[in-house]
Amino acid sequence: MTYSAPIDLRSDTVTKPDDRMRAAMAAAEVGDDVLDRDPTMRALEERAADRLGMAAALWVPSGTMGNIIALMIHLRRGDRFLAAKDAHVLQNELGAPAWLAGGMPTELPCELGPGRMSPETVRAAAGTAGPYYSLRTSLLCLENTHNAAGGAVVPIEEHTRLVATARATGLRVHLDGARIWNAAVALEVPPAALTVGADSVQSCLSKGLGAPVGSVLAGSAEFVEEARRVRKMLGGGVRQGGVLAAAGLVALERVGELAEDHANARLLADGLAEQGWLVQRPQTNILLAGVPDLDLALQRLAGAGVLATPMAGQVRFVTHRDVDRAGIVEVLRRIEKEDVLRNQTAAR
Amino acid sequence: MTYSAPIDLRSDTVTKPDDRMRAAMAAAEVGDDVLDRDPTMRALEERAADRLGMAAALWVPSGTMGNIIALMIHLRRGDRFLAAKDAHVLQNELGAPAWLAGGMPTELPCELGPGRMSPETVRAAAGTAGPYYSLRTSLLCLENTHNAAGGAVVPIEEHTRLVATARATGLRVHLDGARIWNAAVALEVPPAALTVGADSVQSCLSKGLGAPVGSVLAGSAEFVEEARRVRKMLGGGVRQGGVLAAAGLVALERVGELAEDHANARLLADGLAEQGWLVQRPQTNILLAGVPDLDLALQRLAGAGVLATPMAGQVRFVTHRDVDRAGIVEVLRRIEKEDVLRNQTAAR
Amino acid sequence: MTYSAPIDLRSDTVTKPDDRMRAAMAAAEVGDDVLDRDPTMRALEERAADRLGMAAALWVPSGTMGNIIALMIHLRRGDRFLAAKDAHVLQNELGAPAWLAGGMPTELPCELGPGRMSPETVRAAAGTAGPYYSLRTSLLCLENTHNAAGGAVVPIEEHTRLVATARATGLRVHLDGARIWNAAVALEVPPAALTVGADSVQSCLSKGLGAPVGSVLAGSAEFVEEARRVRKMLGGGVRQGGVLAAAGLVALERVGELAEDHANARLLADGLAEQGWLVQRPQTNILLAGVPDLDLALQRLAGAGVLATPMAGQVRFVTHRDVDRAGIVEVLRRIEKEDVLRNQTAAR
Amino acid sequence: MTYSAPIDLRSDTVTKPDDRMRAAMAAAEVGDDVLDRDPTMRALEERAADRLGMAAALWVPSGTMGNIIALMIHLRRGDRFLAAKDAHVLQNELGAPAWLAGGMPTELPCELGPGRMSPETVRAAAGTAGPYYSLRTSLLCLENTHNAAGGAVVPIEEHTRLVATARATGLRVHLDGARIWNAAVALEVPPAALTVGADSVQSCLSKGLGAPVGSVLAGSAEFVEEARRVRKMLGGGVRQGGVLAAAGLVALERVGELAEDHANARLLADGLAEQGWLVQRPQTNILLAGVPDLDLALQRLAGAGVLATPMAGQVRFVTHRDVDRAGIVEVLRRIEKEDVLRNQTAAR
Repeated sequence: MTYSAPIDLRSDTVTKPDDRMRAAMAAAEVGDDVLDRDPTMRALEERAADRLGMAAALWVPSGTMGNIIALMIHLRRGDRFLAAKDAHVLQNELGAPAWLAGGMPTELPCELGPGRMSPETVRAAAGTAGPYYSLRTSLLCLENTHNAAGGAVVPIEEHTRLVATARATGLRVHLDGARIWNAAVALEVPPAALTVGADSVQSCLSKGLGAPVGSVLAGSAEFVEEARRVRKMLGGGVRQGGVLAAAGLVALERVGELAEDHANARLLADGLAEQGWLVQRPQTNILLAGVPDLDLALQRLAGAGVLATPMAGQVRFVTHRDVDRAGIVEVLRRIEKEDVLRNQTAAR
Repeated sequence: MTYSAPIDLRSDTVTKPDDRMRAAMAAAEVGDDVLDRDPTMRALEERAADRLGMAAALWVPSGTMGNIIALMIHLRRGDRFLAAKDAHVLQNELGAPAWLAGGMPTELPCELGPGRMSPETVRAAAGTAGPYYSLRTSLLCLENTHNAAGGAVVPIEEHTRLVATARATGLRVHLDGARIWNAAVALEVPPAALTVGADSVQSCLSKGLGAPVGSVLAGSAEFVEEARRVRKMLGGGVRQGGVLAAAGLVALERVGELAEDHANARLLADGLAEQGWLVQRPQTNILLAGVPDLDLALQRLAGAGVLATPMAGQVRFVTHRDVDRAGIVEVLRRIEKEDVLRNQTAAR
Repeated sequence: MTYSAPIDLRSDTVTKPDDRMRAAMAAAEVGDDVLDRDPTMRALEERAADRLGMAAALWVPSGTMGNIIALMIHLRRGDRFLAAKDAHVLQNELGAPAWLAGGMPTELPCELGPGRMSPETVRAAAGTAGPYYSLRTSLLCLENTHNAAGGAVVPIEEHTRLVATARATGLRVHLDGARIWNAAVALEVPPAALTVGADSVQSCLSKGLGAPVGSVLAGSAEFVEEARRVRKMLGGGVRQGGVLAAAGLVALERVGELAEDHANARLLADGLAEQGWLVQRPQTNILLAGVPDLDLALQRLAGAGVLATPMAGQVRFVTHRDVDRAGIVEVLRRIEKEDVLRNQTAAR
Repeated sequence: MTYSAPIDLRSDTVTKPDDRMRAAMAAAEVGDDVLDRDPTMRALEERAADRLGMAAALWVPSGTMGNIIALMIHLRRGDRFLAAKDAHVLQNELGAPAWLAGGMPTELPCELGPGRMSPETVRAAAGTAGPYYSLRTSLLCLENTHNAAGGAVVPIEEHTRLVATARATGLRVHLDGARIWNAAVALEVPPAALTVGADSVQSCLSKGLGAPVGSVLAGSAEFVEEARRVRKMLGGGVRQGGVLAAAGLVALERVGELAEDHANARLLADGLAEQGWLVQRPQTNILLAGVPDLDLALQRLAGAGVLATPMAGQVRFVTHRDVDRAGIVEVLRRIEKEDVLRNQTAAR
């Protein structure tokens, strides 16, 4: 790849379908998925369920819809659910958990590290069943990798313990696995290892895996049957979705390639550290870097031809398949040339 | 086209993207539509707004989502809305108007013909503002062509009068124009003639126009801005949607070709009448045919290699671009050969 | 009673607690009903359940809350429910069925008379389970007596057949028995005869029975347990409610006295007919009378010192315990003196 | 008063109407509050609005309904609102904020003391308006006194600064003033001093003030007009509510008497401290006391004839008008006699 234009590290959602993926889409066998189930959709859903270790799966237009459908099914109206501090479902889904699912969220502190709650915290928050006029807690939402925590991975034993704790206290478990593929690669386990004991999992095809559109929501056969109904009600039922599912099938073959994105994130972290940036060691493909003046830093980065986003007071860079190792080297060159941190003093 | 396999006249939603459409999809320029607006999406939305005579438009994954977003924006919680008997929004959207938009529907009788209410009916139903404890009516939903009424077209003067009546009584107007293109062709007016005075319109790209996935929701710039937000909340925001928008752009070029579907529906009607069927004269691409025993008729049709659906106690045939004139001739031949109506006596 | 001031026949909700009821309220034993269940509340709920032939009952602040809680429990989000044309739950509860319970209403025609649907209509509307993308019908709401139908009573065999039909088609049944007491008196059956087969029933203590505030919602023990929870969520849980329950206990002793209200309604009907009014024969305590000019008639009635309300284009008079036989005679005298219908020609 | 039976310090909601209050209820002038506004209701609402320094007020059956109506009016669906850690609206209203108002809550830490957030926390949580796909924050809920914080009072300057900060960042402000009367007494300011700048306030008549049922929700005239509509929809509209409003009018005369409850709480705290309990100095009428073994302590208290509740791992005692100074002395005697803390070691 060559990089004359701005290099876009705002998110792995910016990845574009490549020629092979486009060819698969163009050749996809299709049908009316509402009436008959589109054959390529069906193939994708079976493949995804298999990869995720669940009985069944359902394509959805977005990760947000996947999460919302799960909440709508798991929660009775007004039930409370638990999620880690700054979880996507709490911060980035515009109130849909409350508005559409009628769920009361409680944000849990992460004492074990970014995105990492202790089982004790879950147990205490789940509480015990109170009198009839008590708020009823019924679901734990996990997010692995955790976006706002800089792509942090919850280690497999710890993740497993959280799931077990939740179930032991009578909670259901939904895994927001938008980047479960990155977690699995980082942990060197199959994705299915992360869904053991979960009632449902959502995972995105359109982030690091590069599909243009779509996520999958997986669970038991009954769960997916009800999810199909709720999806229709939300307006997420599509017709010849096979054109998108074909891209999803290609995407699922590329899970292993995410290791390159992770390596590139580490390369970027090391380079920035050499240039004096205060960077967290990236565990996957997301890098958070502290700067004295965030707005100025983002502005200078854009001026230098490097796109990034603010997150929790830091600069967030996301590596992905559309920017290879050479691209990261070029990013570092541009940042060095621009001397982004020069003369910065803390804003405010 | 040749027709060995079953000929599918269940719906125009079964249309598959043809080579030209697939090529356009494969070549589409794309971007992250949530972050930046995908360039092909933007082009489609502008083209659709222009064709529909509205200030702005928004791509949505389905007609259901388009209708629901419109209701959510137009209705305050618990408001009443009016729609014609058996309207799609009443019968075919799984309770989303109530559940998601909190709207109380009232079904209006159609005294002027299938799908055709009188202005007096609308005025009477709109009522006058009552005391604070009264149900508040705030929206009229029109559907043109009207699906359950057998693709019936509301004539343009009548349609215009309904819109004017609604506005005069203080109602907003949403047009469920899933098949507005068919209505415009049948009425020999531009589609924009049907949206005059409407606050919003939804129209499908995936029915007769043949796109695999997607609809557009159009209205004022402010309406579309809010719709974009609500779409995200419902999980309808997608990333590289340009691959679908490219199909939509091709679809929009094909509005004129719907006249063939209409001619084919008339051909089918005439042929069935000759074979002794009791058919309504189709106004667009939907044909309702009465039979003595509906279940038996559908079963024999399937046996003969012709797929149709039941609707309101009749057989519904929908003509579309994937079955040409020769296909309709073949359908008639198969039905005649099978002698579908033989020995039928009314069920029950 | 003497009647110098306007005589109020707008509704039986205007009845005021009399001295005996006030004395009972003043002497009521009370407790914290949220924490412990107030003893007088408990006594009222047990008495009401017994009178209604249900396992358990719950006091609620209003009939609207009783109906809404029932819908919230019986309906899954987005389910469809059936109710007779102009039912209170459709017309007079401000969209709460949709907004709070997420229910899609369908209004059924009343072929057998005002407020009276045929079992065939219920069976046809209930339909059969369709594919997953179909609207799901799950509840029949009955209303007996039927307010907007002029206090019409559904005969007991017909009522029973409707309940049986609903259950046979898989529907639950909720009875809006706001005036079930009037129905029972008119039908000369115990109220419990009207709840056979119903899943829940709501009945008002504050209409003809004269309590100042409150209704009861009855059903199975499990239903009432869940209803107690939902009531708290809606803000209907109160503390020393015994002061109101004491009035309710007095009210329940007065069911038999409703026969006087019915006799008074017939007296009023006869007198108005003699004066040339076009009146329906009242079955209970509600009388609808057609007039050429509704607004003028109501205005002249008010001028003459008789308060009534418009309903469905007619004048609605409601007889109740605060206007005795002499009061009705006085009403007729005032109407005659004012000659309310003089020189009226139909408005509009 | 004499205290043979258990002395109930579980909550000030257990207070029962005394003879004077019952006499006022028995003599109350009443009307149909839905149709005409009950005259005593109207008098109460005017008096309450005046005492709270707001333009208008509305009686509601419970504080929960008052809070929920406020959220429903202030929040657009899916908006985020902020509240202090363990606020009643977050913990004690069964998910109604999410379910009924569609609001996403965020719990704020209390750095300045129990129930006391800093303005910086509010400002940071309010954030700045993000892109269209961002969660929108629109309301700050304050609670003063703060129940779960042991009846803690937010000092007037601090309270005023929070309101000002919220408004400066574009938030509306709702005050959950269930115990605003206690706060005002403790701060030695009129209650209206606490509502300056607030958009709405809810305050309970049925807690320390001793009315059997009811709260008031106050705000601008437009707010209250809309609140009246929403109250009807939730089923909170009642008829001859004057019987309850009469109690409310008596209750409002008793605000000054809350000082006795506060003195009694301090007396209890001092006495328990002398007996070796670890108690927080009560600011109002709620006392939290730490014990090694909570379940055992509550059980022994009950055995000794003293009722209290667990709250956040401590014993909560609430003083109120039904237990006077002699009653508190008796409570201390019973606790001493039982030696409640004997041989306790921390549970778990």
